[in-house]
Amino acid sequence: MNSLKKLPFNVENKDGYARACTMELPHGIVKTPIFMPVGTQGSVKTLCREELEDMGATIVLSNSYHLLLRPTLEFFAQYGGLHKLTKWKKNILTDSGGFQVFSLASMRKITDEGVTFQSHIDGKKHFLTPEIMVEAQRLIGSDIMMVLDECIHGGADKNHTITALNRTTKWAERARIEFLKQGIQDQYAFGIVQGGMYEDLRRQSARELKELDFPGYSIGGLSVGETKEEMYGMLDVLADEMPEDKPRYLMGVGVPEDILEGIERGIDMFDCVFPTRFARHGGVFSRDGRLNIKTKAFEYDTSPIDSECQCYACKNYDKAYIRHLLRVNEVLGGRLASIHNLHFLIELTQDSRKAILENRFASFKKAFLERYFQNKNILIK
Amino acid sequence: MNSLKKLPFNVENKDGYARACTMELPHGIVKTPIFMPVGTQGSVKTLCREELEDMGATIVLSNSYHLLLRPTLEFFAQYGGLHKLTKWKKNILTDSGGFQVFSLASMRKITDEGVTFQSHIDGKKHFLTPEIMVEAQRLIGSDIMMVLDECIHGGADKNHTITALNRTTKWAERARIEFLKQGIQDQYAFGIVQGGMYEDLRRQSARELKELDFPGYSIGGLSVGETKEEMYGMLDVLADEMPEDKPRYLMGVGVPEDILEGIERGIDMFDCVFPTRFARHGGVFSRDGRLNIKTKAFEYDTSPIDSECQCYACKNYDKAYIRHLLRVNEVLGGRLASIHNLHFLIELTQDSRKAILENRFASFKKAFLERYFQNKNILIK
Repeated sequence: MNSLKKLPFNVENKDGYARACTMELPHGIVKTPIFMPVGTQGSVKTLCREELEDMGATIVLSNSYHLLLRPTLEFFAQYGGLHKLTKWKKNILTDSGGFQVFSLASMRKITDEGVTFQSHIDGKKHFLTPEIMVEAQRLIGSDIMMVLDECIHGGADKNHTITALNRTTKWAERARIEFLKQGIQDQYAFGIVQGGMYEDLRRQSARELKELDFPGYSIGGLSVGETKEEMYGMLDVLADEMPEDKPRYLMGVGVPEDILEGIERGIDMFDCVFPTRFARHGGVFSRDGRLNIKTKAFEYDTSPIDSECQCYACKNYDKAYIRHLLRVNEVLGGRLASIHNLHFLIELTQDSRKAILENRFASFKKAFLERYFQNKNILIK
Repeated sequence: MNSLKKLPFNVENKDGYARACTMELPHGIVKTPIFMPVGTQGSVKTLCREELEDMGATIVLSNSYHLLLRPTLEFFAQYGGLHKLTKWKKNILTDSGGFQVFSLASMRKITDEGVTFQSHIDGKKHFLTPEIMVEAQRLIGSDIMMVLDECIHGGADKNHTITALNRTTKWAERARIEFLKQGIQDQYAFGIVQGGMYEDLRRQSARELKELDFPGYSIGGLSVGETKEEMYGMLDVLADEMPEDKPRYLMGVGVPEDILEGIERGIDMFDCVFPTRFARHGGVFSRDGRLNIKTKAFEYDTSPIDSECQCYACKNYDKAYIRHLLRVNEVLGGRLASIHNLHFLIELTQDSRKAILENRFASFKKAFLERYFQNKNILIK
């Protein structure tokens, strides 16, 4: 078996299972733990690249499913990749499309060969295979690509979960072969651990993928409706199953408490659309818990969203203005709240990293969560 | 008759009727001719204040009608003015609300006393008078406020136009008295010349308002559906009627050709929502004419919107990306196109100013328009 190129990855310190690591990706070093903003269609909604750089983003995510529908793979083949298009100078990670086919497409039919689905935009039929998704992400030019996986409902029964898991492993093998066949340089492919809510299947998936020796591993199919306890429990299981010397990416997690619990269980990378979607609806994170900035309580509030935050929104604007903007549907409101929420999560991962390097992650996490949840009932209205 | 405080206004040079002037407003010097971006609800759509500063904006407009509905005058009375809310450090001009009551409110009843209307948002009834609108704009704290006027349809008959004109003059007198009574400092009130499409009525309006000795004058009721020739003709009429030593503001004009024709006829100030609204739909100005950036022709275009433009969008992004963003409804597309269009119009007024100072405005205008219209049929698709 030919081997995939190793991703330069250094575990600088471990504090319990929590890890502070450094990854050398083609578009710069990424220090972990890290939260990755999501730019679904080649744009982190409302923001420009300087705003992402200012908040400390070193890697952003984009969605293969959306990009292959628009601007299309033919576009990337002729124009060049997503870095050229967006002018983003740092790293890009793309997902495999598996989750979006599962959650967005209006019709889908999965066989061992691949998946047929109808576009959620124009109903046009598309056929994807593990090989096509390697090719797609090669054309997009992401620094980290995901192999195609089969996603299932959170409550899927064991037989269904086993079928999907076996297919996911087989597709990972095919993607691996395709990746090598295409002789792809300067991109890294991650395998995605599936297995639903079954401990034994999760272990099986992690072990099978480990055999394929991918340069990094993602955990899919969590944060899809299960309880937080179930999710944390599954991360506990996986903490000992996933290779120590490779990055671990928990897909679709983007609230402070889950990020901290993930870090505690050895996760290095996180992404989620929640912080920006939440922001556009007036939801913001603060050290004192979540706030709904549209509530009457903030009508005359001349203080920033979070008085300790150094983001552009907090350094320049008060709650009263952001509240007004959101109430009258001015985009600048969602833009400022998005800047804040992303900055907040990136800073949380940076502070976690610092705590891990100083072997005090447990106390950092405890202090953060105590304060974060203390006023919950007062401030979320 | 007590007199209104004079606005420090210096005509630096005249080139035909075209003027290069300097106004000393409370929030900094404004050099004219100038195009003023419109921030209807206290935000120039999608943009933050640094972006406005970067494009050279020294004065922005906001709409009294919208602000009195949300966040309301009670809000401003308790919180402070619009500068405090938006953190915009330069000048603000507010309109009188007359045009929005006319164009947006679902029901309106005008008497000599004032105007009753229903909010276009929640149907709530409001009553406005010239006195209330002075108070409103005092609370908003705009550097330049407009007196309440009565707006009419472009095709209104002469009797209707006379009635509205007489009321507008009476309302201007009342606003003037109220302004003096309130002892307003550091704000300036402009009268609004009306008179529809009737030359004699326009002259009458200008003369009546001149008597009231406002520190500046606006021209309302143009660019509302009449032909360009009719509008330019009316500006010709007014060029000799309006005081030489005071700023002249043509309301609602925001395309290059009208701005240049206005400048040629002695106009100093312009505003319009068109450049930003047009931008959000994919319309952009360029030295070679208007472009619809969403057209297929630009799919692979790696050049900026206008290769001579120094705006943030043109210095950093290509047409292919902005086209993609607009096609998939990403806000960043409209944001970049808005930055470009506003920058383009402000630069056009700055270049006009330079030409006026060098007594070559006519040739500057001719060269600009020749190039601008040369490729029209090729590029607008």
